[in-house]
Amino acid sequence: MAKGDSRNHHMDILRECRTNIPEVVFARFKDDHGLLETIKSLLEANKRVLVTKCSRSQMELLNNEFASKVKKGDEISGTMIIVEEEIQSEIIGSVAVVSAGTSDYFVAEEAGISSEFFGLKVYRHYDCGIAGIHRVEGALKTIEEKKVDVVIVVAGMEGALPSIISGLVKQPIVAVPTSVGYGASLNGIAALLAMLNSCSPGVVVVNIDNGFGAAAAAYKTIKWMKNRE
Amino acid sequence: MAKGDSRNHHMDILRECRTNIPEVVFARFKDDHGLLETIKSLLEANKRVLVTKCSRSQMELLNNEFASKVKKGDEISGTMIIVEEEIQSEIIGSVAVVSAGTSDYFVAEEAGISSEFFGLKVYRHYDCGIAGIHRVEGALKTIEEKKVDVVIVVAGMEGALPSIISGLVKQPIVAVPTSVGYGASLNGIAALLAMLNSCSPGVVVVNIDNGFGAAAAAYKTIKWMKNRE
Amino acid sequence: MAKGDSRNHHMDILRECRTNIPEVVFARFKDDHGLLETIKSLLEANKRVLVTKCSRSQMELLNNEFASKVKKGDEISGTMIIVEEEIQSEIIGSVAVVSAGTSDYFVAEEAGISSEFFGLKVYRHYDCGIAGIHRVEGALKTIEEKKVDVVIVVAGMEGALPSIISGLVKQPIVAVPTSVGYGASLNGIAALLAMLNSCSPGVVVVNIDNGFGAAAAAYKTIKWMKNRE
Amino acid sequence: MAKGDSRNHHMDILRECRTNIPEVVFARFKDDHGLLETIKSLLEANKRVLVTKCSRSQMELLNNEFASKVKKGDEISGTMIIVEEEIQSEIIGSVAVVSAGTSDYFVAEEAGISSEFFGLKVYRHYDCGIAGIHRVEGALKTIEEKKVDVVIVVAGMEGALPSIISGLVKQPIVAVPTSVGYGASLNGIAALLAMLNSCSPGVVVVNIDNGFGAAAAAYKTIKWMKNRE
Amino acid sequence: MAKGDSRNHHMDILRECRTNIPEVVFARFKDDHGLLETIKSLLEANKRVLVTKCSRSQMELLNNEFASKVKKGDEISGTMIIVEEEIQSEIIGSVAVVSAGTSDYFVAEEAGISSEFFGLKVYRHYDCGIAGIHRVEGALKTIEEKKVDVVIVVAGMEGALPSIISGLVKQPIVAVPTSVGYGASLNGIAALLAMLNSCSPGVVVVNIDNGFGAAAAAYKTIKWMKNRE
Amino acid sequence: MAKGDSRNHHMDILRECRTNIPEVVFARFKDDHGLLETIKSLLEANKRVLVTKCSRSQMELLNNEFASKVKKGDEISGTMIIVEEEIQSEIIGSVAVVSAGTSDYFVAEEAGISSEFFGLKVYRHYDCGIAGIHRVEGALKTIEEKKVDVVIVVAGMEGALPSIISGLVKQPIVAVPTSVGYGASLNGIAALLAMLNSCSPGVVVVNIDNGFGAAAAAYKTIKWMKNRE
Amino acid sequence: MAKGDSRNHHMDILRECRTNIPEVVFARFKDDHGLLETIKSLLEANKRVLVTKCSRSQMELLNNEFASKVKKGDEISGTMIIVEEEIQSEIIGSVAVVSAGTSDYFVAEEAGISSEFFGLKVYRHYDCGIAGIHRVEGALKTIEEKKVDVVIVVAGMEGALPSIISGLVKQPIVAVPTSVGYGASLNGIAALLAMLNSCSPGVVVVNIDNGFGAAAAAYKTIKWMKNRE
Amino acid sequence: MAKGDSRNHHMDILRECRTNIPEVVFARFKDDHGLLETIKSLLEANKRVLVTKCSRSQMELLNNEFASKVKKGDEISGTMIIVEEEIQSEIIGSVAVVSAGTSDYFVAEEAGISSEFFGLKVYRHYDCGIAGIHRVEGALKTIEEKKVDVVIVVAGMEGALPSIISGLVKQPIVAVPTSVGYGASLNGIAALLAMLNSCSPGVVVVNIDNGFGAAAAAYKTIKWMKNRE
Repeated sequence: MAKGDSRNHHMDILRECRTNIPEVVFARFKDDHGLLETIKSLLEANKRVLVTKCSRSQMELLNNEFASKVKKGDEISGTMIIVEEEIQSEIIGSVAVVSAGTSDYFVAEEAGISSEFFGLKVYRHYDCGIAGIHRVEGALKTIEEKKVDVVIVVAGMEGALPSIISGLVKQPIVAVPTSVGYGASLNGIAALLAMLNSCSPGVVVVNIDNGFGAAAAAYKTIKWMKNRE
Repeated sequence: MAKGDSRNHHMDILRECRTNIPEVVFARFKDDHGLLETIKSLLEANKRVLVTKCSRSQMELLNNEFASKVKKGDEISGTMIIVEEEIQSEIIGSVAVVSAGTSDYFVAEEAGISSEFFGLKVYRHYDCGIAGIHRVEGALKTIEEKKVDVVIVVAGMEGALPSIISGLVKQPIVAVPTSVGYGASLNGIAALLAMLNSCSPGVVVVNIDNGFGAAAAAYKTIKWMKNRE
Repeated sequence: MAKGDSRNHHMDILRECRTNIPEVVFARFKDDHGLLETIKSLLEANKRVLVTKCSRSQMELLNNEFASKVKKGDEISGTMIIVEEEIQSEIIGSVAVVSAGTSDYFVAEEAGISSEFFGLKVYRHYDCGIAGIHRVEGALKTIEEKKVDVVIVVAGMEGALPSIISGLVKQPIVAVPTSVGYGASLNGIAALLAMLNSCSPGVVVVNIDNGFGAAAAAYKTIKWMKNRE
Repeated sequence: MAKGDSRNHHMDILRECRTNIPEVVFARFKDDHGLLETIKSLLEANKRVLVTKCSRSQMELLNNEFASKVKKGDEISGTMIIVEEEIQSEIIGSVAVVSAGTSDYFVAEEAGISSEFFGLKVYRHYDCGIAGIHRVEGALKTIEEKKVDVVIVVAGMEGALPSIISGLVKQPIVAVPTSVGYGASLNGIAALLAMLNSCSPGVVVVNIDNGFGAAAAAYKTIKWMKNRE
Repeated sequence: MAKGDSRNHHMDILRECRTNIPEVVFARFKDDHGLLETIKSLLEANKRVLVTKCSRSQMELLNNEFASKVKKGDEISGTMIIVEEEIQSEIIGSVAVVSAGTSDYFVAEEAGISSEFFGLKVYRHYDCGIAGIHRVEGALKTIEEKKVDVVIVVAGMEGALPSIISGLVKQPIVAVPTSVGYGASLNGIAALLAMLNSCSPGVVVVNIDNGFGAAAAAYKTIKWMKNRE
Repeated sequence: MAKGDSRNHHMDILRECRTNIPEVVFARFKDDHGLLETIKSLLEANKRVLVTKCSRSQMELLNNEFASKVKKGDEISGTMIIVEEEIQSEIIGSVAVVSAGTSDYFVAEEAGISSEFFGLKVYRHYDCGIAGIHRVEGALKTIEEKKVDVVIVVAGMEGALPSIISGLVKQPIVAVPTSVGYGASLNGIAALLAMLNSCSPGVVVVNIDNGFGAAAAAYKTIKWMKNRE
Repeated sequence: MAKGDSRNHHMDILRECRTNIPEVVFARFKDDHGLLETIKSLLEANKRVLVTKCSRSQMELLNNEFASKVKKGDEISGTMIIVEEEIQSEIIGSVAVVSAGTSDYFVAEEAGISSEFFGLKVYRHYDCGIAGIHRVEGALKTIEEKKVDVVIVVAGMEGALPSIISGLVKQPIVAVPTSVGYGASLNGIAALLAMLNSCSPGVVVVNIDNGFGAAAAAYKTIKWMKNRE
Repeated sequence: MAKGDSRNHHMDILRECRTNIPEVVFARFKDDHGLLETIKSLLEANKRVLVTKCSRSQMELLNNEFASKVKKGDEISGTMIIVEEEIQSEIIGSVAVVSAGTSDYFVAEEAGISSEFFGLKVYRHYDCGIAGIHRVEGALKTIEEKKVDVVIVVAGMEGALPSIISGLVKQPIVAVPTSVGYGASLNGIAALLAMLNSCSPGVVVVNIDNGFGAAAAAYKTIKWMKNRE
């Protein structure tokens, strides 16, 4: 067999794998033309597209261009789901998205919408910090009663929330540090380091502000553990 | 109800939770006396103890002290399982531990032994780098055929292995950066950053050299997803 | 007793504790809607609210929305006190806020207004640097004569002022590094490191630009030391 | 008056001030000869000397040299009190020293012995982490019942303990990050950053491993607040 | 010979050397006047000028000023070739410029246009990431069939592409990290570190976003290896 | 003598010292009101004021406010000399200011104007990089023939120019790193580190972009060495 | 075709590629047993093995174990070539290895021996710094007269040597930063950053202390440019 | 004239320049053989050699080898002057070397002995910190009365001493940060940053622990300012 052929096969493996995590669009660094082209070609291929980290003006552009095809769009996080035609996607599992305060909304909601794009039911608890830590209680109650599959915990500043929640629930925890903070938060590095050094065993971490990545990890876990056969 | 009481209850929650991830012993920073005391009291409480990051001399100390109770001990990683009495623990799932080279052994084997402590069957593929990347093939074959629950990928230097494997298998991936490297590897920071920035969605990361943490994450995921009821 | 109940009690402890440091609002990262909602609900609960780190446009928004309820507002630091109804709050102690230069005003005044919000009398010495270090003398005189309870020292660049003042007065010193500087000041990291390495024993440090945090530390100290019974 | 004279007066101020925080000896970086000379001259001047951060061999040297004059000596932290003659020092207040685990002992005990040197009663709770977080309860009980003046909280790794305790007690908190940890703990930088970014208002921070500094801050606060007249 | 003279000779060497890499213009940090003056004088001397890292407004300025002399101009990368008169430059070799995604275009195209300025034929493969990694196949096919002299690989985020391509082709690889990414990408530092730690021997690296530098390295290699006599 | 008095004397020393380096105004971080007030009071006291690091709008403000009193003003560096009345200041020495390229102008000219403010004759060589390194020759010739007292060398990117010039002239060299560069220049950190590690003995360094600081160092050296009696 | 098969083919590509850069052994992080096993299996497969970064005791181990098979061994750099049987390898090109001082020897010689392992003739100039920069002249003369294919420049501290040489010769330059230096050299980071920011276009860089990597890059370039058909 | 010739002349300039700062030997990173060879050849050329940063065992080696030729040797700093024959060198000026504490001795004394090697009279004040800051007074008195030419100020930890002294004397100040400290001192980075951000205009800085560099700067300044004709 010729070498060219073998490379083809190498690609087949990857393509097959990609069916589990569909291509998504990371809008930052893209100019308007490139963004539209990318979305259109994916829309044609997959019928539904997730776009993350849009600027305000990119959100407007997409709202104008895709209008009724925009199924979900959140301005603050810059996250959008665009669908060619509405498909009733099957719910394959559930996540709780818990964040420390409303300031972390832009990351938490990226995780939330991304999870929905992947066919997960999402329980949101975004306001534990601002109106009192007793709202963690609400989150804990949901996590316990709904038996969510995975808990995504989003926090900036000192990043201690994942450790605290990890010590109170049995579910796997995906920790997302955010760039919320100032000074010695170093744009989220402080929260990232704290989460990596969590004394609560088993906390895993994704990139700063990477709500999408946490959703993808949750989805991948649920998909495999529940649907492997 | 008095305040003192309520604090008690707070603790009960935590204690209940701890039953899932048993106390383990992190040997570094401990003097001989403290290390022995800690192990003995846990041994009495839990009948089995995992000790991680022992120095050579701590390994000797424990081998002398606990002798026949040492069920498993790896010198290079400084990991040890000590049991009061041999219990036939149930196997609740499986992991593959894949590492880039024999230099990463000290982290990979910490993940391996820790996983066994948690009751997981472990498939080891530690030599993908040194004798040729075709040994990744062996790892991929195991992962596919054994339908392992979680894949732990251990790598130092540029830390690209988790992304590559993540693109070739359907299982959730826990990435462990190692301090293997020199110069601009910055004791593992380069690998850590690479893994956090993985373009393969869903890769989650633990601390540099934290083989135990990856095993705990795998265990927590498997335990919850399979045994939640 | 059920687990859910016990969690409630856990929260009661915290709520009780919160009465000492009332909720405040950190405006940065909040959108207009979220900011207003947060303030309104706190205003209803506590009758008075401290808002910190407002942008210019947030200051305008709040001035328009709350008008006569704005008791104190400083544009440069973005600090504001909003009250539902004027209450004559008791003065429980005093602080001196000393800063190296007018450039540090935005942090010093956040500390000053926050201290007033907590019921502390504030002595301000903000201009020690620009018109001559002999104005430190004025600060020292105030500190000595007024027997202030705590001294908050605010400085950017090399951050040496807290050490110098700490060596000249008997009061406890809270050091606040600021992001004033350029180049190797690394946005305040240089000042932060200098303060953490102070050769004057007993200097304690808060985050870069965290005037509010210094005021909270001073308040907590004074409240406990004077009112514990 | 000549300029030389005025400089003299400048020094008088400082000398007077020094009576509150007596000179102590930082042993690291000193050779044997210099260490002994420094201690002897201070011993003559002040009758009692605190020595911190001794190496094992420095501890031996001092034990041999000063023998019966060694009032207190802790090998693990390298802290020692040497007295010319035993004086019954007055107890002027109290601190609780709380640490996350036995690994943090070397910093916690430096804080403890230093506090005793300053005439403070010390309540030690060093084992909250290893044998279960329910031992925090013990610490909280002491803090409440003994009405300690200041709480010193010592923690490495993710450094979350000061925030947690700060949310549960009314006393002022001095947070001490430790170098306990590995990998992304960056020798204590992770804990330091977390503490500086604490979402619990009023937490103040000293240098990594600086148990002495925390004790000095506690002493300075207590001395001034209680003895100012 | 006088000292002044000898210094002159020192300069002659350098001037002679410069004929291989002609002066180019780095537009950032230049004001409009300085930019125009610099270009004009180089245009007079060399007849053709390469301008890199222009802002949008600088692009407009140059388009207006030099109009028909603008031979090539790319807005996204801010790269421009201005020629006094069209000269048919000889093609001395070829490069492939491969990038991970359209987001890296601004660096890849700087490398591409710069290579053309140096007289190299350029094969562009800029879209390997977004529409599927099977497009790497296209790049590999070009690299093999066209027997390009040097491969320039451009990637942000985790920066793994150069290692992967380096393991699949025989040509020398110049790796260019880009600032594409967010959070722990640290503006390209993560990609830079990964490339420097590449486990694929022989990968060499230039500065973050330095497409021009990669082109210059490729040119210098080709020029010397092919034209040395 | 009372303590208050002695503090006064302490200040006298400082005030006397200040006569050598007059107060200057660092405009960044100042609001318009504060900037004007500071300048006016210094103008009254000293008759002449140096203002550094003005923004464009601050330059306009000062030009409008002080009009004919503006003796010298450079927009790019934001440096300005304002005089109450023109005084013929004595020239006490000379410096050469050498920079690598026109991009470094904003720092070099701050050094130049500041030097003039201090009464130094300034020889400028700002264009060594862009139009050819043979212009270093011009700088060297000036330095030698004019026997300048001190050479200030300004460079960004790799920061090698001070070492090179230091190896070719006998004068003391003050090196000024600039923030010119991108990517791994880390806003001037690369140049700063290079200069601190210069293999040419005796190179001394000031903060990134600190042209004023270099001028002050040159002035202080010249003033003391020539006028000490 | 089944998926397993295609993965096999993927590996074939890589294996074929590996024939250009043979497997080498990175000794650091390996225990004695692992090191010997790795070398033996490679020796059997390839007949010759390059070992880099051996410790002193590893050097001894290998000298004892392989005795007469050790063709070349340098203690300071810890580099060794072991051959099963002496083969007269063809010289395919040449490099000059130039270093700033004898302190950089341990990196320069790793580059030198590695280059010889790859079949390159090596011209060494290691003493440019210590006995006078006029020895650069010797290096330049060799580079010019021998028409070496590639120049490897090794330097620590400020890392300026590659830029200087790059401005004086026509060959491609591979720059190797070393960890030689102290303080702000940050173990070679200063030299690395300087080289990445070189104002001499076309300088490419490898990891700190990575003499082997520079040799591999030179080899890959020469092999491809000269032997491609 | 041929190109080779011109390069020769380039070197002549440098050699002539070197007569002002004689070659010195940096012992760290050198093996015994290389160290001895380097010293011997310099000794033959220059009759006197300065060796810096020797380890203890290197000190012994040199003491044994050069015996009576060792004119001055300090074990703690690892500094040594070796002379072929005693020459009565002319004193060309003076420096004061002031350090914060005995811990900084190893850097201060490197500066002191290096200054003596350069023919400067040295006034040492090394104990300002440990036995009381009133000893700064002694230093100030010396500086004023002896009218020293340059003041070298050596400090670790927070690095504030140069700013304080700079504000009290008229001489030029060379600041030397030391690696004395721990935790957030980051091996001297904290002191380095503080000195670079000094609010006392005109403070110039050398590398961490670079006592030799400060002496060279002082010498270069004095030599030029006093002996230029």
